Amino acid sequence: MVSSDALGATFAALADPTRRALLTRLARGNATVKELAAPFDLSLPAISKHLKVLERAGLVTRGKQAQWRPVQLRPRPLREAAGWLESYRELWEQRFDRMAEYLEELQQSRQEDER
Amino acid sequence: MVSSDALGATFAALADPTRRALLTRLARGNATVKELAAPFDLSLPAISKHLKVLERAGLVTRGKQAQWRPVQLRPRPLREAAGWLESYRELWEQRFDRMAEYLEELQQSRQEDER
Repeated sequence: MVSSDALGATFAALADPTRRALLTRLARGNATVKELAAPFDLSLPAISKHLKVLERAGLVTRGKQAQWRPVQLRPRPLREAAGWLESYRELWEQRFDRMAEYLEELQQSRQEDER
Repeated sequence: MVSSDALGATFAALADPTRRALLTRLARGNATVKELAAPFDLSLPAISKHLKVLERAGLVTRGKQAQWRPVQLRPRPLREAAGWLESYRELWEQRFDRMAEYLEELQQSRQEDER
């Protein structure tokens, strides 16, 4: 199911904190696998595994230079994930506001009861 | 790792298209499990399983009324996920624009070569 669901693949890739940290680093510029691994207490193969998940989700691409193969961020899927969340933001905010109002009313009526 | 990573739990919950559809439905108002199951070709236990994932991620909460137990959206984790994506949007957009510029230059130089 995930293969036909690009948005799902993006969210699945974002579910891991190491992968989110890799994307954050790549947002600042391209990097080699070795450079990406440096701040983490992880082996190069472990980093490569995470990069493969990001690559399959279309979130990063690898350079062609045989020696370095720098990793590059592809921002489009992140844009689409942000767009999906944004498209429902208004509805959520309304529910959030309504819940906040309800809690406030609840608190007020409790304070009145206490008097 | 996921249990200590609320953002990760949110993105993992969003990775499934049925769960995203359930959240979309709940953004319009509370619903019972039966009401939620209606538009899907899924059994009630299958829907309940998805709801448990959403509940563990703090994205929905169940009412206390024994008979209906309506499901309610909790928008806060969605806000936080949107916030995370938004906080990097500027960096991504810059990279996106730079990539677009590069592709345009590439195309122009090709057209000049063809002349």
